[in-house]
Amino acid sequence: MAYVSGVDKKARERGIEVFRKKFLRIAKRILEGRPPVLVIPKRTLSNTIYDERRRLLLLGPEMLRRSFLDVNEARRFMQTTLMAAIIYDALVNNEYPTIRDLYYRGKHTIIYRDEKGRKKDEPTWKEQRESDSVIRDLEVYLGLLREELLILSKEKGKVVGNMRIRSGDDVIDLSRMGHGAYAIEPTPDLIEFLDVDAEFVLVVEKDAVFQQLHRYGFWRKYKAILITSAGQPDRATRRFVRRLSEELKLPIYVLADSDPYGFYIYSVFKIGSITLSYESERLATPDAKFIGVMMSDVFGDDIVRKHLKKLKNIEDISVNEISKLPRKKPYLSKSERRNYIIKAKLKDIERAVELIGYDIAEACLESREMKSMIKRKKGLIGYPWFRKPEWIREMCIFFRTLAKLEIEAMASKGLRFLADKYIPEKIETSDWID
Amino acid sequence: MAYVSGVDKKARERGIEVFRKKFLRIAKRILEGRPPVLVIPKRTLSNTIYDERRRLLLLGPEMLRRSFLDVNEARRFMQTTLMAAIIYDALVNNEYPTIRDLYYRGKHTIIYRDEKGRKKDEPTWKEQRESDSVIRDLEVYLGLLREELLILSKEKGKVVGNMRIRSGDDVIDLSRMGHGAYAIEPTPDLIEFLDVDAEFVLVVEKDAVFQQLHRYGFWRKYKAILITSAGQPDRATRRFVRRLSEELKLPIYVLADSDPYGFYIYSVFKIGSITLSYESERLATPDAKFIGVMMSDVFGDDIVRKHLKKLKNIEDISVNEISKLPRKKPYLSKSERRNYIIKAKLKDIERAVELIGYDIAEACLESREMKSMIKRKKGLIGYPWFRKPEWIREMCIFFRTLAKLEIEAMASKGLRFLADKYIPEKIETSDWID
Repeated sequence: MAYVSGVDKKARERGIEVFRKKFLRIAKRILEGRPPVLVIPKRTLSNTIYDERRRLLLLGPEMLRRSFLDVNEARRFMQTTLMAAIIYDALVNNEYPTIRDLYYRGKHTIIYRDEKGRKKDEPTWKEQRESDSVIRDLEVYLGLLREELLILSKEKGKVVGNMRIRSGDDVIDLSRMGHGAYAIEPTPDLIEFLDVDAEFVLVVEKDAVFQQLHRYGFWRKYKAILITSAGQPDRATRRFVRRLSEELKLPIYVLADSDPYGFYIYSVFKIGSITLSYESERLATPDAKFIGVMMSDVFGDDIVRKHLKKLKNIEDISVNEISKLPRKKPYLSKSERRNYIIKAKLKDIERAVELIGYDIAEACLESREMKSMIKRKKGLIGYPWFRKPEWIREMCIFFRTLAKLEIEAMASKGLRFLADKYIPEKIETSDWID
Repeated sequence: MAYVSGVDKKARERGIEVFRKKFLRIAKRILEGRPPVLVIPKRTLSNTIYDERRRLLLLGPEMLRRSFLDVNEARRFMQTTLMAAIIYDALVNNEYPTIRDLYYRGKHTIIYRDEKGRKKDEPTWKEQRESDSVIRDLEVYLGLLREELLILSKEKGKVVGNMRIRSGDDVIDLSRMGHGAYAIEPTPDLIEFLDVDAEFVLVVEKDAVFQQLHRYGFWRKYKAILITSAGQPDRATRRFVRRLSEELKLPIYVLADSDPYGFYIYSVFKIGSITLSYESERLATPDAKFIGVMMSDVFGDDIVRKHLKKLKNIEDISVNEISKLPRKKPYLSKSERRNYIIKAKLKDIERAVELIGYDIAEACLESREMKSMIKRKKGLIGYPWFRKPEWIREMCIFFRTLAKLEIEAMASKGLRFLADKYIPEKIETSDWID
């Protein structure tokens, strides 16, 4: 081994300790002649709760018991202990596995004889989906993120700004990265924030726009920490942003494309994914604000105001609240819109229905053809955190115009417009969605 | 404008100067009453030459003349001058456009009357493919990469190692990045190499494996510059690697998956893409070596040695040369192979045919079914730089086994194996393909 940072050494020790505590119990049961059982929080949709107050997806109280001596559970029990052993070994041996190579490490064929004495074989797991799922079980069982067990993964997030951090044994000045940037480590819990001279964090979905704002000196001029997730954010970028919010109390603004995919990326930062709710408690940033690009920045809000009566009969929606929202004037002229907007595709519309619910789509869509095409999404109720006046207005504009707009189009009006008008003005006038 | 680095200022001045020199000529022609014409090197396949000696794809001598007063060329002439004006404006106005936003900046509708007096309209360009193609024309016309015109793009490449660089106005120590890394800037020609204490460059296709080797301290122990392209390399990463090779004379080793896609990624680093040959002269690294993972590292070479007679009738291949290559023993045991290898898909096989040529595939494939499935690729002759004994051997193993292997599988044998045995041993024994 060439070199181990002190931080990693400590993380290993902590991981090893948690492993020993949790699994010694099971070993003890076996020594006492009792059947070994793992009791693990259930990661099912029915056991996923959206906590309105904390604005987090959390696992509920349901537990699953995985017993070795139950034929239905034996395979999964063995998979779980096999993976636990591999990860524990990696911790002890100064290894840094990835989830892909944990899959390979554990993959082998077990040869056995069935009840009739016939020779049979069975792989420990057939595909990575299976081993990944076992790793998730271990994360909730141990109460540790896999990153805390020094399991690495690819990492796309970058950051620059007036801030110094300690990572490994180095102190890194994020304001001295030249034209490049600091690529965030895959284990962001091991980063120490040293000193920060910034007023907010701007998270940009697109790397190319991050490059533009960085080069333009945006973060220097406006005292920002500038981050990009380079598309759909990975876990490390989400955890890093969460820590900036929670520990440094910095406001977090997310800048994404004005389309359902951009809104979804914001949602991943803010709340997380319903199917991976156990991550949310550590990775989500409930205070993250969507600064844009909003549909109402593109079109203004007249188009919805004229249409409010259609929303009247939707049970949980107060049309009154929507009409009381501050009026919005578009940032784009009619001719700019003509050149910049892109026609939404069916999959954009379907994603929008998933986010906001079928009823809003039906009330706002004009096109009969589209209405019939989304019929099969009937019954979708949307995510609770999108069912609020601000988002209903945005989504309704989307359904009425079936248009989308990329951040790059805003930069085309001039970087000066994006950096010195659009973003600062929206922050100053609180023109965001929380 | 918040802040402009001195380097960017100089780059702007240089770009502006080239623009003026090239386009003042055209303005002069117009003032003299002569029809304006652009004479641009042809970027066609027929004008693409593989220079065996320099091992570079180059544009040949063919030129196209784009005349304003020719109905067939007027549209393209106008597109070219429109884009030139936009890029020139951006240079003058301290803007940092991306190719996406150049598309938006130029997109508008021209309204005109046709020869019968009817009102018509025509967009400047319909999709980004059109504006991108115009940007490429300007690159060859001006003899400048778009990065030198401060056109930015997203950038995935990362680097760590014993090296200091100057980027913008900062000096960055690439050995002090903690667990993170330095994200390379989109304009790598503006980087200044200050001092380097390294013996070679290891370029890793996969970000996750880069993270593992970095964390393990590989670059410290073996005095390496460690780089990842995070998949298919972008232009900036390629240019950065080329500069390390050309200016610092460091050997460049590429570590990719053992499959036709991994081989292709190596090929992009080494030679570039045939359809973008004009980039090759600046972005390709002819000295880049493929260190692995080789098919022969997985299977050894017996499987081909026993099969050489089948290759005998292929014209440009000397079976003798293949049999004289140093013998190869596999790094993996039979049971490791069983757990680690993945079955190739049809698209892998097709890609392999594209790289090496149909004749080799036909001679080496065993499966009749596969043979008939690739029939439609008949006539493909492969890339000249793959038609050499070493690659024929690798490809033949691939066709005979129809197996692939990821780098992660090598890490599964232990990071120690990958970092302290596989890579150093292969470098020491020159077990690479040039």
